[in-house]
Amino acid sequence: MAAKLEYEFDLLVIGAGSGGVRTARMAAAAGARVAVAEDRYLGGTCVNVGCVPKKLYSYAAHFHDSFDDAVGFGWSLPGPATFDWSVLRDNKTSEIKRLNSIYQRMLNEAGVTLFNARATLKDAHTVCLTSAEGDTQVTAQKILLATGGWPWVPDFPGSEYALTSNQIFDLETFPERFLVLGGGYIAVEFASIFNGLGSETHLIYRGDLLLKGFDEEVRAFTRDEMSKKGVNLHFNTNVERIEPNGSAFNVHLTSGDILEVDAVLAATGRNANTQGLGLEMLGIHLENDGKVLVNEHYETSLPSILALGDLTKGPELTPVALAEAMQLVDIHFNKAAPRPLDYSTIPTAVFCHPNIGTVGLSEEAARKAFANIRVYRADFKAMKHTLSGSQERTLMKLIVDDATDVVVGAHMVGDEAGELIQGIAIAVRAGLTKQDFDRTIGIHPTGAEEFVTMRTPTRS
Amino acid sequence: MAAKLEYEFDLLVIGAGSGGVRTARMAAAAGARVAVAEDRYLGGTCVNVGCVPKKLYSYAAHFHDSFDDAVGFGWSLPGPATFDWSVLRDNKTSEIKRLNSIYQRMLNEAGVTLFNARATLKDAHTVCLTSAEGDTQVTAQKILLATGGWPWVPDFPGSEYALTSNQIFDLETFPERFLVLGGGYIAVEFASIFNGLGSETHLIYRGDLLLKGFDEEVRAFTRDEMSKKGVNLHFNTNVERIEPNGSAFNVHLTSGDILEVDAVLAATGRNANTQGLGLEMLGIHLENDGKVLVNEHYETSLPSILALGDLTKGPELTPVALAEAMQLVDIHFNKAAPRPLDYSTIPTAVFCHPNIGTVGLSEEAARKAFANIRVYRADFKAMKHTLSGSQERTLMKLIVDDATDVVVGAHMVGDEAGELIQGIAIAVRAGLTKQDFDRTIGIHPTGAEEFVTMRTPTRS
Repeated sequence: MAAKLEYEFDLLVIGAGSGGVRTARMAAAAGARVAVAEDRYLGGTCVNVGCVPKKLYSYAAHFHDSFDDAVGFGWSLPGPATFDWSVLRDNKTSEIKRLNSIYQRMLNEAGVTLFNARATLKDAHTVCLTSAEGDTQVTAQKILLATGGWPWVPDFPGSEYALTSNQIFDLETFPERFLVLGGGYIAVEFASIFNGLGSETHLIYRGDLLLKGFDEEVRAFTRDEMSKKGVNLHFNTNVERIEPNGSAFNVHLTSGDILEVDAVLAATGRNANTQGLGLEMLGIHLENDGKVLVNEHYETSLPSILALGDLTKGPELTPVALAEAMQLVDIHFNKAAPRPLDYSTIPTAVFCHPNIGTVGLSEEAARKAFANIRVYRADFKAMKHTLSGSQERTLMKLIVDDATDVVVGAHMVGDEAGELIQGIAIAVRAGLTKQDFDRTIGIHPTGAEEFVTMRTPTRS
Repeated sequence: MAAKLEYEFDLLVIGAGSGGVRTARMAAAAGARVAVAEDRYLGGTCVNVGCVPKKLYSYAAHFHDSFDDAVGFGWSLPGPATFDWSVLRDNKTSEIKRLNSIYQRMLNEAGVTLFNARATLKDAHTVCLTSAEGDTQVTAQKILLATGGWPWVPDFPGSEYALTSNQIFDLETFPERFLVLGGGYIAVEFASIFNGLGSETHLIYRGDLLLKGFDEEVRAFTRDEMSKKGVNLHFNTNVERIEPNGSAFNVHLTSGDILEVDAVLAATGRNANTQGLGLEMLGIHLENDGKVLVNEHYETSLPSILALGDLTKGPELTPVALAEAMQLVDIHFNKAAPRPLDYSTIPTAVFCHPNIGTVGLSEEAARKAFANIRVYRADFKAMKHTLSGSQERTLMKLIVDDATDVVVGAHMVGDEAGELIQGIAIAVRAGLTKQDFDRTIGIHPTGAEEFVTMRTPTRS
């Protein structure tokens, strides 16, 4: 593209998270002069306080099961395994520093200018950068808002004692008693992590079941499995107040119960991270939920200002931000036509224990969308657990539109569900039929082979 | 179907392995009068001395890595874990007895008559059954040969001291020093198992690389990973003779080396298990390799006698025998037209450590089949091993026909490769394109997401 020399940059990206960095690198590769402004850490939520540390801690928590499972396979430990939180935390921190430096190097190698500063919009082409050295202004033909999301904590007495996912990975000491408030994916993941690491774990949720929006059977199955693993689930309950009690906290519940715990995590939602960006001053339109409104070119109501990722509508997932980044660069720097993402077949995993993997429609959504559906399900003890003695079970479901035979949803609760669902997601997104699944030979013995060997519908 | 009452049964199945039992149950469900003759165990190779115990032992061997990996995640064991072979072996035996009884119950419930006897063909419709009670004859309109395969051991001095996969699971004592002869999937699986369980393990193979027929890069990668895990690989080497040495054995190699080990496994191939069936007398045609020749109706040269599974051409895999069984019943008992299986896209896993998962063409086969191909590859350290300290790496490959963009092969070496490849296999069998893969959103953070995020061909 021809660089408009009246601006210092062709693109200025605010926020060095997954979507921002990918956009910056690819726009630079397309020949644009690109800068990124970031006042926190490189890699955003995913690398620093999201996907990456969460998955590492989930691995750590799984070892607990491994030690127990091994006994049925002939292994003996000379005594119980012990866990040192500081080792996990500090090894995690080293790994994240390594990833931060990889992001730094990738931006450098792409020729992207990095401003270690907080950015505020001044006008359609100007940003004010604030850092310890003071304020400067830079101009760009296009400005991308990629500041992601930020944890939201409800207001209640003592809510200031609740931690968010931004702090929980770096606790100074391990919470022997842990309480998480919320019922979404972040809540169930951290409940599983701390339970697996050895905390007495409580999950408090005002609703009557976890993971709203997921397939109902998946939700109930997950509840039962988490409960079997020892997580104390309190539904239809909320926190009234938190009172400090020495180094611990007394958490008063609406049920009248008082739980004494060492840490409280509020996993109560995330909002678009728009504060201080200057959106109001420029009159940039927001959605009702505070997300930034964009068209299919990722343009806000002020067309030189773009936005993507968790800041905008759609699932708050790193790979979605990456896909949007690639689309955005195609449209704005490679002159391609928009080809909107198919948000209905985006697969996702929840790293509670056991894991959840899912793509496409829940049984309930499919019943609304189609006149007749077929539901295929398998609910079984994985082969490993025939010897481990664990009572963990695995659930797999396929939802099929009866009229077309198309598989419109696939769901799993079980070991490595996210790994298994990725390939299934290729098939579901492409609109393959149940017959396509049936004609595929199973890989024996695996859990995944159930997805191609379910022959009789459980219900229609 | 109308039962021909001049015969006692509509179908007599010889061999109660995967293919035989599935055929018997489904034919009975279609209304046929069915009998099965089996003189050994119910469930065949897969349940008793194949897939099932192999996978259980592979799980057992993986715990060794888990104990090591856990340290980087903050876990400490008070001392080294110890392994008791007899616990694994006996728990395995209990589980297999449970599976045997499930097969028994399934046959009973399907109304199938079970003869605990050895069967020999007498004529096109008659079988002689030999048991402790003596000989009897039964007649059937159709007879299915489903006797599977049997290990083959080459003839060399002392070869009688070599065990086969039929015996290895039930060793009286654990072999602290273990040698496997062969380079196929059974050889690499047992090398990984005994290495993981703590044996000093040697693999002796006359060829220069493992796993002939697999993608060359997969073969080399597997060699390197197995070697890193401590398996002693001896290529271009053969066994000259085995000499007993007390309770151990001196294995003399063609290299001049002598290895003293506690057990030798010959994983040197499997033949069609046709001995004593009476095929010669009836003039039933065999393939050059001794397998029973069948047409697309699964009929031998004597059309009332059918055959399937490992006894016939095609990959020796349980799910293939099951698919053939369902086809056979459709053709012979439900009057369906034959719909030959697509043997080119049958996925499979090898449970060496790390696992291999594969579907479709190797890079080498694709180069022969297509004018131009694109190869996409990722070779990385799995996220778990950023903290575990393990040097294990993962390989993923996609092979694409450049002209059509169709993904014609997918390969992986890494943790749970079989589980990951199952879904990919649905996509490959259905002929989906690289663009279909690219348009699928990744599940982050997983290993599997690499299969949908490889954008730049490594080579063409």
